Amino acid sequence: MGKPFGPLPAPGTRPFIVEVRRGAQVESRHPVVAAVVDADGRLVAGWGDAGAMIFPRSSNKALQALPLVESGAADAFDLSQAELAMACASHGGETRHTGTVAAWLARIGRGPGDLECGAHWPYHEETARQLARDQAAPTPLHNNCSGKHAGMVSVATHLGEDIAGYVKPDHAVQRRVTAAIEDVCGVKIAAENFATDGCSMPTMAIPLDRLAHGFARFVTGQGLAPERAKAAKRLAAAVAAEPFFVAGTGRFCTAVMQAGGGRFIAKTGAEGVYTAASAELGIGVALKVLDGTARAAQTALGGLLDRLGLLDEAGREAIRPLVEQPLTNWRGLSVGSIGLETPAF
Amino acid sequence: MGKPFGPLPAPGTRPFIVEVRRGAQVESRHPVVAAVVDADGRLVAGWGDAGAMIFPRSSNKALQALPLVESGAADAFDLSQAELAMACASHGGETRHTGTVAAWLARIGRGPGDLECGAHWPYHEETARQLARDQAAPTPLHNNCSGKHAGMVSVATHLGEDIAGYVKPDHAVQRRVTAAIEDVCGVKIAAENFATDGCSMPTMAIPLDRLAHGFARFVTGQGLAPERAKAAKRLAAAVAAEPFFVAGTGRFCTAVMQAGGGRFIAKTGAEGVYTAASAELGIGVALKVLDGTARAAQTALGGLLDRLGLLDEAGREAIRPLVEQPLTNWRGLSVGSIGLETPAF
Repeated sequence: MGKPFGPLPAPGTRPFIVEVRRGAQVESRHPVVAAVVDADGRLVAGWGDAGAMIFPRSSNKALQALPLVESGAADAFDLSQAELAMACASHGGETRHTGTVAAWLARIGRGPGDLECGAHWPYHEETARQLARDQAAPTPLHNNCSGKHAGMVSVATHLGEDIAGYVKPDHAVQRRVTAAIEDVCGVKIAAENFATDGCSMPTMAIPLDRLAHGFARFVTGQGLAPERAKAAKRLAAAVAAEPFFVAGTGRFCTAVMQAGGGRFIAKTGAEGVYTAASAELGIGVALKVLDGTARAAQTALGGLLDRLGLLDEAGREAIRPLVEQPLTNWRGLSVGSIGLETPAF
Repeated sequence: MGKPFGPLPAPGTRPFIVEVRRGAQVESRHPVVAAVVDADGRLVAGWGDAGAMIFPRSSNKALQALPLVESGAADAFDLSQAELAMACASHGGETRHTGTVAAWLARIGRGPGDLECGAHWPYHEETARQLARDQAAPTPLHNNCSGKHAGMVSVATHLGEDIAGYVKPDHAVQRRVTAAIEDVCGVKIAAENFATDGCSMPTMAIPLDRLAHGFARFVTGQGLAPERAKAAKRLAAAVAAEPFFVAGTGRFCTAVMQAGGGRFIAKTGAEGVYTAASAELGIGVALKVLDGTARAAQTALGGLLDRLGLLDEAGREAIRPLVEQPLTNWRGLSVGSIGLETPAF
């Protein structure tokens, strides 16, 4: 496949840096490790230890959603593109998000009480304030992972499995998810690399470059069994078609995919992780801010996607304030910015 | 002065590390530079570049409050210990905080509209939710810096100066503050090191070890003019006596000073900064998490104060969950922890 981006530096051991500036000084620095891997597993570009073990957290939700399609549940319940996108989402808890999950659960004869993700106040700040103004409290529907959990409940429901404990590593639902991740990323996950995610599901540490490889295979289908390749492409298409349902208002995942016009998918994960993948270029990207900070992850991903030639002029301008982020204070005065150290890569 | 702590490592160029653990793995790492300096300016201990230029941000509010006492305003307005502590505070916007500032301003014939700090939702989450439930919005009183601003307005009011623009670097109020910081820390601040803080006041980058030196002098009075030494000790005593008013419920500054039982003062600053000082040991401490993350700064400071022998068994136990921080997820399940890499120092 064509690679329109110019020569990239040979993979090196130095992370690149996202810097936080105040006045004329750099106030804080975030080192970022990143791997760009093609569908054959070749490291096309890398910064820092490309084989570093990282927890993908929510950045691999699209991989976790494979059994939803492969099991036949997506077809049996006639899931829409928006619902499939929400199975891969870390959403803001806006009304369109919670309403979509609520309707989906009702349609399959389940409810919010069946979700084992716990509740938290919506990420979308104005929605959270309105909830408080309405004297209400958050429910599991507001949990940013409620769409993923609705997907897991759908699989168990479709297959006639007991849904209780579907978040536990030894539940059939999770065993299928783990097997799918191992297959797509080409890894065997050892017991000591299992941990628990914020929403109570397992998250498993894998090498950064294997995560990138997994996403290259996910969007191209290359090297995957035909049914798996088909399911992956269907999920990738849903994510690309419905970026609002993957995150929401003001969120980088949504904005960067809108700016890309369908040329790539991108997904954030807690503790400074991002993945992205482009079928057109045949590559997957995975990055981790070593200190786990989200503000740097979006700047890093935006810069890297631009470097790879995946943004046109309009797209680059659309996301510029989320990549080269102006910092204003409580009175709205400009005090600094967040951006890539020059030269970053 | 006696130094009850055992031998410290020679100052070295390696930062120490605060690690974020999930399951059996380390998920994220925060490098910390720190300097422990005595009142003569000697580097007693150091990790990383002790001369690194950093913005103290709110960690030097006690130094910024010197003119409040030195000008005679504190006496003229009969400021209480709690009010002096609030002049040095980054408070949570709880009712006792906002009420104290409101009463103070009313007593000097001023009001919230005179504060130039801007408004933000209270840091104390339950107070913020309640404000929303009450269909109210935050005012400048809720700004974490409102006590500092009330102090600045008090100085201008007492001296008959125009209070408008008191946050600007060239206002007489700020020129006094800058001169006090330069004197106490033994630095001359160049124009390019001035920037704007979150609350619109100037913040000036200075070397980390000079900030630590300044705090050693602040609490001991050593090397300061008598009037300045007296003002500094009065402010340090107020901060130590009223730790709730310096931060608030659930906040580390408050908890660690309560745990120390008056043996030291400690203050956080945005972007991962902490200062502390002990008159008993004759030392000041300054640290900066290089990536600017607050969660690591409190773990770093707590560990360092303990290493310096400033916490007894009961104090250590009282703050343990804020230093060796358990991480739970949305359902309250234990998923990991934040703590010092072993050996840290």
